[in-house]
Amino acid sequence: MFESAELGHRIDKDTYENEVPKLREALLDAQFELAQQAKFPVIILIGGVDGAGKGETVNLLNAWMDPRHIEAHAMGEPSDEERERPPMWRFWRALPPKGKIGIFFGSWYTLPILNRVLGKSKSSELSQSIDRINRFEKMLTDEDALILKFWFHLSKDAQKKRLKTLEKDPKTRWRVTDTDWERFKLYDEFRKVSEHTLRETSTGEAPWIVVEGEDFRYRSLTVGKILLEAIRKRLDHPARPAQPNIAPLQAPIDQLDVIDKLNMSQKLSRKKYETELEQYQGKLNLLTRDPGFHKMSLIAVFEGSDAAGKGGAIRRITAALDARYCRIIPIAAPTEEERAQPYMWRFWRHIPRSGRVTIFDRSWYGRVLVERVEKFCPEEDWMRAYSEINDFEEQLVDNNTVLVKFWLAITREEQLRRFKERESIGFKRFKITEEDWRNREKWDDYERAVCDMVDRTSTEIAPWTLVEANDKYFARIKILKTLCQRIEAAMKKG
Amino acid sequence: MFESAELGHRIDKDTYENEVPKLREALLDAQFELAQQAKFPVIILIGGVDGAGKGETVNLLNAWMDPRHIEAHAMGEPSDEERERPPMWRFWRALPPKGKIGIFFGSWYTLPILNRVLGKSKSSELSQSIDRINRFEKMLTDEDALILKFWFHLSKDAQKKRLKTLEKDPKTRWRVTDTDWERFKLYDEFRKVSEHTLRETSTGEAPWIVVEGEDFRYRSLTVGKILLEAIRKRLDHPARPAQPNIAPLQAPIDQLDVIDKLNMSQKLSRKKYETELEQYQGKLNLLTRDPGFHKMSLIAVFEGSDAAGKGGAIRRITAALDARYCRIIPIAAPTEEERAQPYMWRFWRHIPRSGRVTIFDRSWYGRVLVERVEKFCPEEDWMRAYSEINDFEEQLVDNNTVLVKFWLAITREEQLRRFKERESIGFKRFKITEEDWRNREKWDDYERAVCDMVDRTSTEIAPWTLVEANDKYFARIKILKTLCQRIEAAMKKG
Repeated sequence: MFESAELGHRIDKDTYENEVPKLREALLDAQFELAQQAKFPVIILIGGVDGAGKGETVNLLNAWMDPRHIEAHAMGEPSDEERERPPMWRFWRALPPKGKIGIFFGSWYTLPILNRVLGKSKSSELSQSIDRINRFEKMLTDEDALILKFWFHLSKDAQKKRLKTLEKDPKTRWRVTDTDWERFKLYDEFRKVSEHTLRETSTGEAPWIVVEGEDFRYRSLTVGKILLEAIRKRLDHPARPAQPNIAPLQAPIDQLDVIDKLNMSQKLSRKKYETELEQYQGKLNLLTRDPGFHKMSLIAVFEGSDAAGKGGAIRRITAALDARYCRIIPIAAPTEEERAQPYMWRFWRHIPRSGRVTIFDRSWYGRVLVERVEKFCPEEDWMRAYSEINDFEEQLVDNNTVLVKFWLAITREEQLRRFKERESIGFKRFKITEEDWRNREKWDDYERAVCDMVDRTSTEIAPWTLVEANDKYFARIKILKTLCQRIEAAMKKG
Repeated sequence: MFESAELGHRIDKDTYENEVPKLREALLDAQFELAQQAKFPVIILIGGVDGAGKGETVNLLNAWMDPRHIEAHAMGEPSDEERERPPMWRFWRALPPKGKIGIFFGSWYTLPILNRVLGKSKSSELSQSIDRINRFEKMLTDEDALILKFWFHLSKDAQKKRLKTLEKDPKTRWRVTDTDWERFKLYDEFRKVSEHTLRETSTGEAPWIVVEGEDFRYRSLTVGKILLEAIRKRLDHPARPAQPNIAPLQAPIDQLDVIDKLNMSQKLSRKKYETELEQYQGKLNLLTRDPGFHKMSLIAVFEGSDAAGKGGAIRRITAALDARYCRIIPIAAPTEEERAQPYMWRFWRHIPRSGRVTIFDRSWYGRVLVERVEKFCPEEDWMRAYSEINDFEEQLVDNNTVLVKFWLAITREEQLRRFKERESIGFKRFKITEEDWRNREKWDDYERAVCDMVDRTSTEIAPWTLVEANDKYFARIKILKTLCQRIEAAMKKG
């Protein structure tokens, strides 16, 4: 893979000085159009051998283009904030929105490669990272991102020469540390691991581009020209998403589904409710104050039919928690900023730190519920959402998050009763709108979407809890009880 | 994932008998149209719990449809033939061509799941299998296949009941073996591993469909209807491939590439050639008769410019080998049968058994060379070919194949000299055509394609050997020597 980057590529000074002004102008033009269209983001990854000019290239791109629409991220050691979230969180928060360019100096490749080179991880762990990276980049390209992955390469001799040259010059001596020489000893291993990783992640949609790093003018002009070409190509020929040949999801032919099977007549007396409420709220409070909880976090997701009682149930939980460590995220239509990002971005941003609780009032499941039923997004988008959601939840659980997902089910009749009640009671009237009545007409479509959702995302690591919510007392206690059980189980596991 | 398949779905006899005739007719219609269009193959995977009706469903589909256009494959223990090839070979050879339906009873999922359940493999090995499966299925859908993955599920109680029922009836008693009861003990583990695997392989393009297996009528009608819907949908709305937003591959800005760097003046005297030819042919002969060679196989790939001397070099190799164990595969335009399959199919079919040698005179690299340059396929197809090729070669090498890839390079001037020589010598005239002259005009495009090919597919496990072939003697000896070295190195590694 590195043959072409060990040939001693060079560009002479005259050519460089002749080409650069034209290139800069064209890049600025393209960047302007990119920002105007605001239809796709450009994600540039900079990786490779130390001393191959990675940093200089980042600075140069910044200097050549309009810095207002470009953002460089130096991804060094993760911060405390970052360490308490899944490893990909820091990259999600740094993704450029549509119309902008994000440069990642050090990326999702850095740690997997480095840990393997230093012997801190096994080859099977590298495989898992590669798998996760491929899923992540597929999601990005499915979401229209333009990804450019540059790998700056130096042969072993060239790297040695480069480090020595830097060391000799008093002005650059500080840039060469003992660590650099330590790393140099690992050159062969680094090359082997990188080659393997590049090979396994060079896909049709996001191929690696290997650039020889020795000559400043060659590497700068190469990166600049490829970047220009790539952006221009996308601006002039917008990507066209596939219309995939998927098998349509269908309702069970006997019309029997998980919702039908619920025993909706389950009830709790007021008296029993009040006793149990106190009991489980107390328990939940103790559990979240347990030292064991500091190493984990809790995410509770609430989905349900309109008027199923999500709000009331959530209030019974928050009443048991320390408000400083608990956040409620109501999910409504995405903001402008959120619309400029991949679908899952607006949920990643709300992942709690360790020891914290986040409650989602509606969630990422909107894509496979309302967006599917109302046809807000095409079938291929909500079909791929199931696996994107499973990937997301797997990363949460890997990071010691207790993830509890509730579907609050009420019957058609009970919903009607509640709608009417809301209309007749003054302080509840704001809770019922035309839209609620419209949604109600699509009851069957919603039920279908709920069952598909449960089938495809109720997994061993993040099961759905279906809550029979015709009786609010019963529902609230079932929810509190489930939360306590799930936290206890996680604590036992360790 | 299995919630909906534990509800006790049932279809009564009347409904069934009323629906089946209509369904069969519609299926036959769809099947007929599928065969007429011959635009995509249908691949049906049947997996799941023992006793959940997998076999019956396969038989039923066969009975309902036209058996001439449907082929069922029972994938049990691999044969000797199959064990000597990479694990995926047996599935490649059984893929249905466009216009046909292939049913896999037991599939690429069976062994990875079973080995994990029985503790014969580690969870990291399962991850690797899952990764490979996802790449394979992505390739299939990229190649327009319609994939339907059915998972037949039974709850633990239902499976027990089912096995007991079968045992009680003298007519079906033979179907329940001790192994079945042994397997039943592993139900929980099987469920866990399956759920994990299904979750990780349920993609937007090829989602799993879980079917409750208890009721014969329910499961049969469900599978039949989904199959019908899926085929109809594809017939009526052909899949539209994505026009992906890839960064265009570009020539190095200083025009320097791996081919330029070759020292094309290297020569060998006739006398030295004859001595070395004898020496290395003898060595190669001994190596391929070594007992160590029986556990491996050799694949040599020859690519090169027109008139670069591939044929002559190949003859010098075969002269050293036992003709019974050596095959030469000349790759020209694909046959009709090959065109009805994914691109890589026609190379998979020629993978040698252990102890054998296969020489490809041109190869799978045609896609990124002639097909790219002559625009026989769209950019997205040859762009994804690089990673499909790397996947393929990785599987060969994993299976102890020594894979040696030669690019025979001659200069523009030398080609002209040879072309002219060919035209003037009677018995060589057939070797030169109009097309050769036309190709020659695209010399630069081909050189570009060759360099990209080397950059993207010369890997640590399957490197390219560039052969300076202006002097035929030099070229032939370099080739023989390289073959010997690579076999020796593989033997040392064991």
